[in-house]
Amino acid sequence: MTRIAIRQFIVVCALAGAATTATTAQSADPLPSWNAGRTKQSIVDFVTAVTRQGSPQFVPAAERIATFDNDGTLWAEQPMYFQLAFAMDRVKALAPKHPEWKDQEPFKSAIAGDLGKALGGGTSALIQLMGATHGNTTSDEFDAIVKNWLATAKHPTTGRLYTEMAYQPMIELLAYLRANGFKTFIASGGGVDFMRGFAERVYGIPPEQIIGSSGEVKFELRDGKPVLLRLPALNYFDDKEGKPIAIYRQIGRRPIAAFGNSDGDLQMLQWTCAGSGTRYCMFVRHTDAGREWAYDKSPMGALDKGLQEAKGKGWTVVDMKNDWNTIYVFQKK
Amino acid sequence: MTRIAIRQFIVVCALAGAATTATTAQSADPLPSWNAGRTKQSIVDFVTAVTRQGSPQFVPAAERIATFDNDGTLWAEQPMYFQLAFAMDRVKALAPKHPEWKDQEPFKSAIAGDLGKALGGGTSALIQLMGATHGNTTSDEFDAIVKNWLATAKHPTTGRLYTEMAYQPMIELLAYLRANGFKTFIASGGGVDFMRGFAERVYGIPPEQIIGSSGEVKFELRDGKPVLLRLPALNYFDDKEGKPIAIYRQIGRRPIAAFGNSDGDLQMLQWTCAGSGTRYCMFVRHTDAGREWAYDKSPMGALDKGLQEAKGKGWTVVDMKNDWNTIYVFQKK
Repeated sequence: MTRIAIRQFIVVCALAGAATTATTAQSADPLPSWNAGRTKQSIVDFVTAVTRQGSPQFVPAAERIATFDNDGTLWAEQPMYFQLAFAMDRVKALAPKHPEWKDQEPFKSAIAGDLGKALGGGTSALIQLMGATHGNTTSDEFDAIVKNWLATAKHPTTGRLYTEMAYQPMIELLAYLRANGFKTFIASGGGVDFMRGFAERVYGIPPEQIIGSSGEVKFELRDGKPVLLRLPALNYFDDKEGKPIAIYRQIGRRPIAAFGNSDGDLQMLQWTCAGSGTRYCMFVRHTDAGREWAYDKSPMGALDKGLQEAKGKGWTVVDMKNDWNTIYVFQKK
Repeated sequence: MTRIAIRQFIVVCALAGAATTATTAQSADPLPSWNAGRTKQSIVDFVTAVTRQGSPQFVPAAERIATFDNDGTLWAEQPMYFQLAFAMDRVKALAPKHPEWKDQEPFKSAIAGDLGKALGGGTSALIQLMGATHGNTTSDEFDAIVKNWLATAKHPTTGRLYTEMAYQPMIELLAYLRANGFKTFIASGGGVDFMRGFAERVYGIPPEQIIGSSGEVKFELRDGKPVLLRLPALNYFDDKEGKPIAIYRQIGRRPIAAFGNSDGDLQMLQWTCAGSGTRYCMFVRHTDAGREWAYDKSPMGALDKGLQEAKGKGWTVVDMKNDWNTIYVFQKK
């Protein structure tokens, strides 16, 4: 082809491509697991408003940042954070090398499978448990340990792999946002390297778009080969005020949409929705005792102040039971 | 069009698109500011190897992470880090509100424009200077202060805006990597929020792909409105061992290519090039006293151990004088 012919051909292709995309967008529902209603409509309205060229609410693609809490927002968190289940299993696996744990809390109770008693010592018991099970490995070793656990461990009540307990409606929402030029991030109290073991595969969120809690790390040369050694000490706890601060440090832009399920996410939503222009804030509320769990309060946290603020500010509150026709893919008939 | 006709048309367009791209890649040199030779060839060879489908060295796009130091690697760093020039100007701007600085180091010497004397107090003087000039504002205020300074302040010897002193060959290299599916990051000892004031515009690197040093931040509600307050205290110093650690925390993947110019970048290069598969490590060496500066050692750091290790491991060392036909765009004839 001549240069001009090629150029004309490209223009025709581009126009055809745009037309085809438009047809697809009209014909297929990008959020099939969401029931028609006010909640679903609020999502579509927001995305339409910020992506329509020439609209006064238009937001350039580079600024379409959306942040998601993980536990209880993108996947389940009962009867305990899945990462705590990992920690409990890991204590058992490590116990033979630590005979002293038999008489030492929180390990003694963790070995006995009694989480409540293990965490009776409060934050310091939790930090001890997390340190011992998430530290003392290299970065590469830990990655392999997490992936192996996720591939084999089963949830105590559903009997499913933990990764199967990701919420299908939220997976669709993530994909819908990305299809509309958003960059999707996780901002979670969970351990960043634990989440990196599955988030790309399950949510389509790459490691570099995950913000979470982290431990101390040491750089070492072992026989001239560099190694990152994970220390059994907390570096950052990404919860409450910690979320907007970490988002500022790592993303450097204020999100235009934020999604959570508890008061631990409130400051992230406050920070997001206080920005200028069109913003979207959502709490997922656990209202389905049959298919999932029904609670505003549990040992994993509470949705209390957040619910009040959502009402006052007109944020969206998902009623899982009524807004979602599917929760987990494996429940689909 | 019918569905089948549309599908066929899309296939033809896709093939045509691929063919057109291939033609473009062959005809235009993506690195025109690099002189032909071993250095330039090493870049092209690496990119070709990791992007060729079916090649044993092929790396999936998601894993094509490249990290760049900033000062001395992407833009100049003489006679002082540009961020230090910002700090010195900011001390002068803030001085009327701080009469006590007249008799107090490091501020007294900073007001007098004597950087050497101001930093005579070592690290603690530096931290004091940076805290006072980078803290005590909200996140939004600081962003505006940096952007205003970058738009007006001039470099003492070239008389140019600091952003004009970005290295054109490196800007081309960043674009070339991105055109080949790489995600480009900055990993610098510089302040992350200072770099965010220009990196997207100048380098095409968005805020969320910048890792740097940072200060403490506090979340506050002011009249119910959330604010991120920058405190005059250091949170993280992203240098030496700090670089691979921060890369692990924020990117969560080991880069396959890393670029620096001093021993402060050595651990990042060690970590990058110790990974399995094909890797690329480069030091930019300042060898051009006429167009830029010639130094292996300066008050801004040294390239010493790094140079030794580069020789031993076959990393690329750029000779600015001979490898770059253009350094700054404004020098072009």
